[in-house]
Amino acid sequence: MWKPDRKNDQPLYQQIADDLERRISYGEFPPGSLLPSERKLAEQLGVNRSTVILAYAELRAIGIIESRTGSGTRVSKFKWGATPKHTPNWHRYVEGGSFLPNVPFLRRIREALQQDKTLIDFASGELASDLAPAQEINRLMEESSRTEYFGYDNPQGFVPLREALVSFLGKYRGIQTSASSILITSGSQQSLYLITQCLLAPGDAVAIEDPSYCYSLPMFQSAGLRLFRLPVDHKGVRPEDVRALYKKHRIKMVFLNPNFQNPTGRLLDPNRRSELLEVASELGLPIVEDDPFSLTAYDGVPPLPLKSDAPTSVLYIGSFSKIAASGLRVGWMVAPHSVVDRLSDARQQMDFGLSVVPQNLAAQFLMSPYIQPHLERLRMNLLYKRDLVIEALRNELRDLVSFTVPQGGLHLWCKIIPEVNDNKLLEEAIRNGVIFVPGSVYGSDSGFVRFTFARPKADEIVSGISKFAAALRSVLG
Amino acid sequence: MWKPDRKNDQPLYQQIADDLERRISYGEFPPGSLLPSERKLAEQLGVNRSTVILAYAELRAIGIIESRTGSGTRVSKFKWGATPKHTPNWHRYVEGGSFLPNVPFLRRIREALQQDKTLIDFASGELASDLAPAQEINRLMEESSRTEYFGYDNPQGFVPLREALVSFLGKYRGIQTSASSILITSGSQQSLYLITQCLLAPGDAVAIEDPSYCYSLPMFQSAGLRLFRLPVDHKGVRPEDVRALYKKHRIKMVFLNPNFQNPTGRLLDPNRRSELLEVASELGLPIVEDDPFSLTAYDGVPPLPLKSDAPTSVLYIGSFSKIAASGLRVGWMVAPHSVVDRLSDARQQMDFGLSVVPQNLAAQFLMSPYIQPHLERLRMNLLYKRDLVIEALRNELRDLVSFTVPQGGLHLWCKIIPEVNDNKLLEEAIRNGVIFVPGSVYGSDSGFVRFTFARPKADEIVSGISKFAAALRSVLG
Repeated sequence: MWKPDRKNDQPLYQQIADDLERRISYGEFPPGSLLPSERKLAEQLGVNRSTVILAYAELRAIGIIESRTGSGTRVSKFKWGATPKHTPNWHRYVEGGSFLPNVPFLRRIREALQQDKTLIDFASGELASDLAPAQEINRLMEESSRTEYFGYDNPQGFVPLREALVSFLGKYRGIQTSASSILITSGSQQSLYLITQCLLAPGDAVAIEDPSYCYSLPMFQSAGLRLFRLPVDHKGVRPEDVRALYKKHRIKMVFLNPNFQNPTGRLLDPNRRSELLEVASELGLPIVEDDPFSLTAYDGVPPLPLKSDAPTSVLYIGSFSKIAASGLRVGWMVAPHSVVDRLSDARQQMDFGLSVVPQNLAAQFLMSPYIQPHLERLRMNLLYKRDLVIEALRNELRDLVSFTVPQGGLHLWCKIIPEVNDNKLLEEAIRNGVIFVPGSVYGSDSGFVRFTFARPKADEIVSGISKFAAALRSVLG
Repeated sequence: MWKPDRKNDQPLYQQIADDLERRISYGEFPPGSLLPSERKLAEQLGVNRSTVILAYAELRAIGIIESRTGSGTRVSKFKWGATPKHTPNWHRYVEGGSFLPNVPFLRRIREALQQDKTLIDFASGELASDLAPAQEINRLMEESSRTEYFGYDNPQGFVPLREALVSFLGKYRGIQTSASSILITSGSQQSLYLITQCLLAPGDAVAIEDPSYCYSLPMFQSAGLRLFRLPVDHKGVRPEDVRALYKKHRIKMVFLNPNFQNPTGRLLDPNRRSELLEVASELGLPIVEDDPFSLTAYDGVPPLPLKSDAPTSVLYIGSFSKIAASGLRVGWMVAPHSVVDRLSDARQQMDFGLSVVPQNLAAQFLMSPYIQPHLERLRMNLLYKRDLVIEALRNELRDLVSFTVPQGGLHLWCKIIPEVNDNKLLEEAIRNGVIFVPGSVYGSDSGFVRFTFARPKADEIVSGISKFAAALRSVLG
């Protein structure tokens, strides 16, 4: 993205003013629209705020923008020469749509990560670059057989990938299935989205874990669903809670992440697992099982999915994102034929299916000899990073935090013992050079933190936790 | 996908019965669910219907399935051993979601194309394999610099691709823009979807062309929009119609495909173009401009987009799908900052963004020396195919069809002069080995046909039109 050139003879503020004038004339900021605040633009461009103040003054002087106290800086409605008589009121459109925006904390986190590349990142729920099989994927890309035709894909997803998944899921997850029961999606995210859009209607009641990744997704609210909570304790959710919610609210579906749950890291207890399947079967209640983490089990023995024992009641969702490469955007759903058919049909309308290129790479990776050693290395490295983060927390904050040690997954769910304000803690941490996700994003009370220890490099973890500890102490005062 | 093995000692019907039993036990067809009809399964597996009848009889004999006259063949609810007490009523879920399924004609076409690979395909709106730059893309894949990290992408899309598009759009489309005004999407389709979901609310009125690609997308109805028609004549839409719809229905947005419109192939007349921009500006009315075909202009002089003269009123949508490779799933929107921001935020919830791999290939293709010669070759070949289809139609059906000769694009919009039933014509054509899209899919009356001459190979066009002509004559009786 454009940055002012410090070697240029023109002063920085003038370069910035010229760039803004250009962007305004191109329609990026239409007449009447709000420009970024001086602070924010300075951060984006990596200059002092005073430089931006000078640039804005320059544009004000030639009548292109206007500043009014308390309402920020806007593009002039009347003085700007090339202005059409009336620009659409984009602000009204942006506010008026029915799909809800992301939760503010997540937007703040994204913005902070984009602006400051040096932040130590315990927030992004993905693997560090040294845990992803980038070399292997690059090698497959060079070697892979040529694609003869880059046309639209099969609506259910690339056939060779679905066939590779049949053996992968049989071998690694104990799931017996067929290529015609699989839908390839853009990560788990798209599977969840399709389910909320196509199998549920506004007003339907569904049960989700508490805390849960689902709370971070306004898509559930956008779809008009009524959400009910299944508290997660040290053994996962309680089957009797599912029965109670069904009796009271006629819930139509249960969303679960039974293995190394996001964010708590908890594993559904085997007895509860059987009871839960019993209850679901008795009530004819479908379960959506999100299973992104099982293969990271640090002891090398991945817990079984619900799907393996309840093939007809469970919509099973898996993905490459947490075990290999989120950037391939390859996830999958295993579901009854009628569901796969309905969802792939709807997806055609939304995006016309996925690119064959990453799907082909994913298929080749699954069939290659790389997969097993990659998974073993991944488990070892995650265990190492988990221990680093735990040791650092014990050294820095022994009496201030409590947590359960996870046996798999990418995250540590950590309670801050003294009362603390989520927002203040996050902002202070960002100022200190470290970032995390506040627990309230997942529906928990204030005072919880999700540390994704998989994301920072190993040598950043100790200093990251130090920075976090300093932020916490400063906020506690 | 699985097919019975004719070299196997086991009879075909027994192989099919075993495969179905397996798929039923895996949950693909839960208890109570409908199995494919005998005819359909026979088509899918490439066997005689009598073989499927034997396979079903075998499964009936062991109690796994049940057939009742008039209601098809279903998986037994009670006799099937591994059945949970109650399977979710998947049928109710599939019917109950709020997102509408694709139009029946399009589902029929997809199904027919999947079942019979020998059909001559005038239906799929994409380039034939020999028109796509497959060699060039394969070469870029081999040569391309290694990707160091396959993590989640920037929510607005891959930065180098957006930067490459800034020069591409400036050079080829006369659009001055900046990387921060561009959102990369999964083809044009996802741009349209995001606009209907995020900028409009149920009950909003919008104007679309008549006929229009938009009618093929139940997404507009799923979003609860009220659709009003702008008839397309030989000069495109009439600006006064836009004004009238605004007065009468307070339309909030206009969806247009001004250049080589899909399906009519019409070009918006330059005078109407200026008037239209005048009206939109006067009313403060946003225009969504879908511009997939301009670069195919056979004379090599692509018509200007509306966007180039109305940067702040137009949401501009473009894509690789119709000019290079639909299978990359790379499209783009150029829009004011606030719109790009809102849409990319929402898209994060739907699919967590696109894969970096095809985006990187697209960026490299745009910056490579391949692009200009590719576009020239594409134009020449499309012109050649257009002439082939026109000559064939004139030879075969001179007095039965009428059409305007398009000057760009992938389609010929053809009126069948005698009265004809769309459905009968399509089914007869499929039986004859050729397929097309009936015009009613685009909201027109019965008796129009869209021939995508870009899709079949050149040597299939003449025989394809012959088969179509035979089907038409047979239906006309």
